[in-house]
Amino acid sequence: MKFIHTSDWHIGRQLHNQSLLEDQRHVLAQIVELAVTHDVDAVIIAGDIYDRSVPPANAVALLDEVVNRLVNELKIPVIMIAGNHDGHERLGFASRQMRESGLHIIGPLNNTLVPIEIVGKSGNAMFYGLPYADPATVRHVFDSEVNTHEQAMVQLLEQVSEHDSQGLPKVVISHCFLDGGSESESERPLSIGGADKISSTVFTPFSYAALGHLHGPQYKGEEHVRYSGSILKYSFSEQHQNKSVTLVELTPEGVASIELLPLSAMRDVRIIEGELDALLEAGKTDLQREDYLMVRLLDKKAILDPMGKLRAVYPNVLHLERTGLMANNSQLAIGRDHIKKGELDMFTDFFSQVSGEPMSEEQQAVMVNAIDELHRVERTS
Amino acid sequence: MKFIHTSDWHIGRQLHNQSLLEDQRHVLAQIVELAVTHDVDAVIIAGDIYDRSVPPANAVALLDEVVNRLVNELKIPVIMIAGNHDGHERLGFASRQMRESGLHIIGPLNNTLVPIEIVGKSGNAMFYGLPYADPATVRHVFDSEVNTHEQAMVQLLEQVSEHDSQGLPKVVISHCFLDGGSESESERPLSIGGADKISSTVFTPFSYAALGHLHGPQYKGEEHVRYSGSILKYSFSEQHQNKSVTLVELTPEGVASIELLPLSAMRDVRIIEGELDALLEAGKTDLQREDYLMVRLLDKKAILDPMGKLRAVYPNVLHLERTGLMANNSQLAIGRDHIKKGELDMFTDFFSQVSGEPMSEEQQAVMVNAIDELHRVERTS
Repeated sequence: MKFIHTSDWHIGRQLHNQSLLEDQRHVLAQIVELAVTHDVDAVIIAGDIYDRSVPPANAVALLDEVVNRLVNELKIPVIMIAGNHDGHERLGFASRQMRESGLHIIGPLNNTLVPIEIVGKSGNAMFYGLPYADPATVRHVFDSEVNTHEQAMVQLLEQVSEHDSQGLPKVVISHCFLDGGSESESERPLSIGGADKISSTVFTPFSYAALGHLHGPQYKGEEHVRYSGSILKYSFSEQHQNKSVTLVELTPEGVASIELLPLSAMRDVRIIEGELDALLEAGKTDLQREDYLMVRLLDKKAILDPMGKLRAVYPNVLHLERTGLMANNSQLAIGRDHIKKGELDMFTDFFSQVSGEPMSEEQQAVMVNAIDELHRVERTS
Repeated sequence: MKFIHTSDWHIGRQLHNQSLLEDQRHVLAQIVELAVTHDVDAVIIAGDIYDRSVPPANAVALLDEVVNRLVNELKIPVIMIAGNHDGHERLGFASRQMRESGLHIIGPLNNTLVPIEIVGKSGNAMFYGLPYADPATVRHVFDSEVNTHEQAMVQLLEQVSEHDSQGLPKVVISHCFLDGGSESESERPLSIGGADKISSTVFTPFSYAALGHLHGPQYKGEEHVRYSGSILKYSFSEQHQNKSVTLVELTPEGVASIELLPLSAMRDVRIIEGELDALLEAGKTDLQREDYLMVRLLDKKAILDPMGKLRAVYPNVLHLERTGLMANNSQLAIGRDHIKKGELDMFTDFFSQVSGEPMSEEQQAVMVNAIDELHRVERTS
């Protein structure tokens, strides 16, 4: 049994207001080619298929093309689960009418696990797709008493453990945040206050855990509990990541061997730094000058229309930082840190500025629930 | 070959800000029951499945349920086409992966006709689903020189005529505005300036034309060129319409016999008129007092909180007209007429008020194109 594990396609996403649709088309075509080259038995997509609950029409059309190429033309089954960015109902529409075709979409959570047996050229395996679900949803669907993301996952995995796979290896597909996993700046927090993290050990009993959410490829605990990472760099913080899909080969006994298959972006996402004149000079011979760039200008004096000058050489400069002009570089760091903090901290800051007092723990707990609820509503509306 | 023809479900639609989802669930369950009772070979939905390009998640979930009941549980094939209200790409996602199941969704127009042969208990038939497409789209997809809706339809129907159905009756499914058809207030114009209407004669060569768009059940020209009408009254102008689905039986030679199967709404949509006290008194014994109501109050004096008083008896009063207070009833009529006029006339009024001059024919032509383009973009974004 040989399959490709990928996740976090985020089709329709923009980077600093630049549409990435053509970049996504480019890299998705590579995934199709890799599936052919490696003669895989399935392609697994572990959530965040789209970037938003309501994807733009051209994003839907692109996914339709890719899926049709894999499933109908190449006869390679595809399993995808809804992530925290996806609209579960919209993504899951008519999924029961697609199953026979080999396309398996797991949209809204329900209390009946649907194991998917994939027939492989060197042995079969049983796949279990768990859509992203926060504790409130799991509590509602299973009428149970779970409060944390970890408890919710344990509840979902119980069904997987109990299912009789007739001796076939079990592969779990899930979209979640493993404790200790390393973040990028482009993931939207699943929750706030840290209760979104779960221990990697809950997945170790299975032959393989195909995870989505974190955008850097990595494993936690054991090698077979793994994030494939996103297909493109979705923030400048990912400039040093190498994007790939994961090729997984399972023995009939369920032992996984793993290989990373690199993806090559149409345009790279990177940061360049220097004085304007030097950058413009270097750009003339830079074969990658069409990459998506953040430019840190070190010049200490005012410059007329630096963006215009840069774009004449590097057409896809998306962001410009006048690092040289910043009186205090530590301020810059604070600024960045602040953005990373998320809604709770920003609201806490706002609250203490307005009220003159810090928020109490009780008040913070109320806010945590409110913000979580807002994210939940956003996902289901 | 026996099938149900229905259209204009508009799932997710609101009536004066009142969600109709439960009413839609109620009437869709009847359609499923009618399909069983009459042992039909297919259910045809001629466009405007949803009310908006981006339907709410609960509308998607309802359609998913209905389709699953028909296709998976009852094994009754369903064919649906995108109407002018639907998002063609979103509705058509993964449609090629559903075909084998018996669910046929025709989303975006493309230049390859996909005939659908349905196997019937007393003979087969060939169905041709044409999604709603304005002249600009047909021009683009077929690289042809069509300018009117009629020319566009003739272009699409040519493919149908040319297709060899191996002697099977041909059924065309289309979403369009037939010249002479009677409108309601709840249809969104396909175009403005009248160029949206097409002659019913283009459909007469086929065994049956299952049309959508107009909300009142009706036929034009010949009995087999027919609108099923919407499943619910979507405006008070439809208060006297009887909603139904159309049961069509085709002989193997393609002669259609037709029967209307009435639908019964959970709550009717109607207008009541009278003085407040009389209406409140009558309401006490009105078994239909939970209907969706427009109330025309004939009282000539001021009344404190008439809506509150009415809703205490009729909980679903959606709109109140103080007809008795209107100094000049003709003004009321003008007001209604104005609403019906649509964007072009409203803009023409606005233009002449602002500029002090009427719009020239040339200026109007520019506006017609601009507004059509806006509607087109809305449908595809």
